Amino acid sequence: MAVRRIEVRERVMERNNAIAATVRERLREHGIVTYNLVSSPGAGKTLMLERTLRDVGRELGISVITGDVQTQNDADRLARHTSRLVQAVVTGGACHLDARQIEAGLDAVDLEATRLLIIENVGNLVCPANWDLGETAKIVVFSVTEGEDKPLKYPRMFEQSTHVIFNKIDLLRHVPFDVDRAVAYARQVNPALRFFSLSALHGTGMDEWYQFLRANVRELQAHQA
Amino acid sequence: MAVRRIEVRERVMERNNAIAATVRERLREHGIVTYNLVSSPGAGKTLMLERTLRDVGRELGISVITGDVQTQNDADRLARHTSRLVQAVVTGGACHLDARQIEAGLDAVDLEATRLLIIENVGNLVCPANWDLGETAKIVVFSVTEGEDKPLKYPRMFEQSTHVIFNKIDLLRHVPFDVDRAVAYARQVNPALRFFSLSALHGTGMDEWYQFLRANVRELQAHQA
Repeated sequence: MAVRRIEVRERVMERNNAIAATVRERLREHGIVTYNLVSSPGAGKTLMLERTLRDVGRELGISVITGDVQTQNDADRLARHTSRLVQAVVTGGACHLDARQIEAGLDAVDLEATRLLIIENVGNLVCPANWDLGETAKIVVFSVTEGEDKPLKYPRMFEQSTHVIFNKIDLLRHVPFDVDRAVAYARQVNPALRFFSLSALHGTGMDEWYQFLRANVRELQAHQA
Repeated sequence: MAVRRIEVRERVMERNNAIAATVRERLREHGIVTYNLVSSPGAGKTLMLERTLRDVGRELGISVITGDVQTQNDADRLARHTSRLVQAVVTGGACHLDARQIEAGLDAVDLEATRLLIIENVGNLVCPANWDLGETAKIVVFSVTEGEDKPLKYPRMFEQSTHVIFNKIDLLRHVPFDVDRAVAYARQVNPALRFFSLSALHGTGMDEWYQFLRANVRELQAHQA
């Protein structure tokens, strides 16, 4: 029984990885940088994306694919801030997006007009870590209300990501969260991690995030030119 | 491929439910009330349990089985507050506890001395909803930093639970969270839900939670006498 489960799982993952490779190639051909945002539920991905779309959505040619277990609430929220298409994927109970859903989502995205694709994954610190979606990189959004120990408790997610965004830093005065300790724990799991600190609610620190997005979009365009 | 996956999954769930039934019977025979605490990562289950063990752990004969994906951090934290055994289960990547892990955990718990068993599940709003552990009831710990929409986004978890504990209410002044709206969304999914509001960090509202535990432990003991 256990052996059968593992075999089936491996075949499913192999198939996912194959589709992710074609997604990655398609995005590369169109010169699109793609970030896969992962986090706990309620870490603030959607609010951060709302503000990002409003402030630099047009400038950076941002398109969004947002995944949710049951609702399209996040897609509806995001759509208010952009004339660009926001593609919603309802996973119907699954705890992560998979590459096939991104492949299908891309058919509804204007790839010619897109320079930066942001995938908002399901709020979950376990499942999305193992699923390659063809992204340039995974980025963890980490609310300072969650406690410093999350990199140790969910190491795979932090291993698989290139950046960590500390969000809700306006609450640091009110919660027992030591940013230096959280950074140390995260580096223990993945020494190459880079960090941002911001408050999507108040706008603090968003400029550094935008500079990062801008630099990476320009770099890929220069590389392709 | 899809059919095979579903078949395997159904057999796994059937097997889990059968084990959960034997766990439930074993707990009933010993007159033990069992709550399965579920939440997002970082909602504050462990701190709430630390305080609960310190304040009423001895009075209510509380034992704990705590599940974590990779570490035993939570078990170590809890063990500082009680002389009672805290049984740690490392799921090794899985996003939830299953009944077999509880069945094995019970072998290490002094059931004669236990009147209330609290299971601290993996921090995850998707996976644990589908897994019966033989508990009396599931209880969702819901941090007010997570946003009011979580019951709509993760309905199955709220459908499967009897109570919701709003935690971190000391932060209500600093976050855009409307408790009445969150209650309305939760009742939309499950009209029978009951609610607690507390701050495990500051101790506010913990007495009502203790009264609830006390009443349910006494009720089961009276029922069995």
